Amino acid sequence: MSDYDVLAIGNAIVDIIAQCDEAFLVENRIIKGAMNLIDTERAELLYARMGPAIEASGGSAGNTAAGVASFGGRAAFFGKVSKDELGAIYAHDIRAQGVAFDTDPLDGPPPTARSMIFVTPDGERSMNTYLGACVELGPEDVEATKARGARVIYFEGYLWDPPRAKEAIRLAAGHAHAAGREVSMTLSDPFCVDRYRDEFLDLMRSGTVDIVFANDHEMKSLYQTASFEMALEALRRDCRIAAVTRSEKGSVVVRGDETFIIEATPVATIVDTTGAGDLYAAGFLFGYTAGYDLQRCGDLGSLAAGLVIQQIGPRPRQNLRDEAAKAGLL
Amino acid sequence: MSDYDVLAIGNAIVDIIAQCDEAFLVENRIIKGAMNLIDTERAELLYARMGPAIEASGGSAGNTAAGVASFGGRAAFFGKVSKDELGAIYAHDIRAQGVAFDTDPLDGPPPTARSMIFVTPDGERSMNTYLGACVELGPEDVEATKARGARVIYFEGYLWDPPRAKEAIRLAAGHAHAAGREVSMTLSDPFCVDRYRDEFLDLMRSGTVDIVFANDHEMKSLYQTASFEMALEALRRDCRIAAVTRSEKGSVVVRGDETFIIEATPVATIVDTTGAGDLYAAGFLFGYTAGYDLQRCGDLGSLAAGLVIQQIGPRPRQNLRDEAAKAGLL
Repeated sequence: MSDYDVLAIGNAIVDIIAQCDEAFLVENRIIKGAMNLIDTERAELLYARMGPAIEASGGSAGNTAAGVASFGGRAAFFGKVSKDELGAIYAHDIRAQGVAFDTDPLDGPPPTARSMIFVTPDGERSMNTYLGACVELGPEDVEATKARGARVIYFEGYLWDPPRAKEAIRLAAGHAHAAGREVSMTLSDPFCVDRYRDEFLDLMRSGTVDIVFANDHEMKSLYQTASFEMALEALRRDCRIAAVTRSEKGSVVVRGDETFIIEATPVATIVDTTGAGDLYAAGFLFGYTAGYDLQRCGDLGSLAAGLVIQQIGPRPRQNLRDEAAKAGLL
Repeated sequence: MSDYDVLAIGNAIVDIIAQCDEAFLVENRIIKGAMNLIDTERAELLYARMGPAIEASGGSAGNTAAGVASFGGRAAFFGKVSKDELGAIYAHDIRAQGVAFDTDPLDGPPPTARSMIFVTPDGERSMNTYLGACVELGPEDVEATKARGARVIYFEGYLWDPPRAKEAIRLAAGHAHAAGREVSMTLSDPFCVDRYRDEFLDLMRSGTVDIVFANDHEMKSLYQTASFEMALEALRRDCRIAAVTRSEKGSVVVRGDETFIIEATPVATIVDTTGAGDLYAAGFLFGYTAGYDLQRCGDLGSLAAGLVIQQIGPRPRQNLRDEAAKAGLL
């Protein structure tokens, strides 16, 4: 028995999304396609230069939790917002999606985290994240009952940026493994991997993490190689299951000597890639915790990722359970 | 010489937009297609029942000002936000669009206004507006230089809901007419017309308002008739110019004995009708202040309205000047 299919842990962030041209990224020294960490001063500067925007709840693991719930899975989330308007919006959106979210909000500064996301005409997103209240997430926020009661815990590598979230992850992973559960993570971003490479490898090799999600850039960054094949072989040895996404080339799932090749969902026009990896993980983990084979888990991931990149914002508006049924994946 | 083409005055509102089915509107007694005014208690109740949402700056006249600026017109806006996160978002978005916005924000409660907008599968929007800081807009917020320096003032009938905004309108209209400018208004909503019918008719018949925007429902509500033709004849007598929108049937513009029939822009799928009337007024007023004939003013209105209803949110993401050029309207 389990209380939840997936417990996701991550930075609780409201996205502020606007379009820009390629020159804007260059002029403002924003690394394209990456998550750029920013402080208060730079946040104010970039916002002053940003065009008209819309706001939507985001955050990598939060998007995954919302996706799992949209598939009909039972999801919970740990993440730190502040008691302000954006924090109220964040809490509303994730709960309204059916995700259990009970982390105590921070009473006082810093404010709820926000990420200014610039979307270029090719649909690529470049994120500029002010971590705000996320820096206060710590082991005291780990609800042991949820950590023990979820089939799979999923956390984002981004949690190594705030100071104490990694302690929360180690504590939650301990609860999970003691209860016979599994722990998964996403490598999040190639530069994030570069910042915490040794620690991420240790998480995998020590068995703290059982299942790893990555895109090809993150995986290559992890093993500091340009070879997809070499990196995949290393990853195959370092964790029990790995799912590696490759944009329009689909994804590859490996488990020991087994390899599953997953096709990408065909997409007419890429509007905004925000949330693609998060929703891939959502589909995969929904399928995995439902007991589906890894091929179908990957197909569910492709389906959700393919939907979210055809709209602005990081969480699909469609009901993913309905979409999966239409695609014959349930 | 003029400093601005259009000075818009309206309730400064952040939209909170979610999808719902028809049954939700019935169960929650939300009048479909209308602007429902709500208090704090009902706002909390509806938000608790609302699905995951996105946020976008809105407000009728604010949307029009943003639209005029997107066409390349010189726009200014008067509207009251509070010094809170949503107020900062509102001010950012309208300024980032190039609109001059300098109304002093309210320091303290109530918070910035928000409207919970439920979009049904047919694309119709049903609004639930908590006026918040908007109730504090008053004549002290009228910047006389801007009121005298804009070719056309545009305000929303919705401003009769807060207590003192109408005083601001009468003051601004006085400045405008003294400077030889024109004043326009939108009737906003059939129920709003029902609340303030006599005052709206007096604004028109006294010459306080020169140009009137309405949709067919609002116009029929104004004259309490089911006959489009009878209402249009009455409207023709009561103001100098009137533009009446009729959804997919396009619009009709009248000036004295002249009548201009405007076609609607063909639209494949209506996603969200929010902002349709506001953007029609934006296109019309951009054209009008550029000196175009009324047929072309109407065509510009149709173009902008047709674009905004094909996306979620009340302000088009496209650059309207580029779109007008592509359509051969510049």
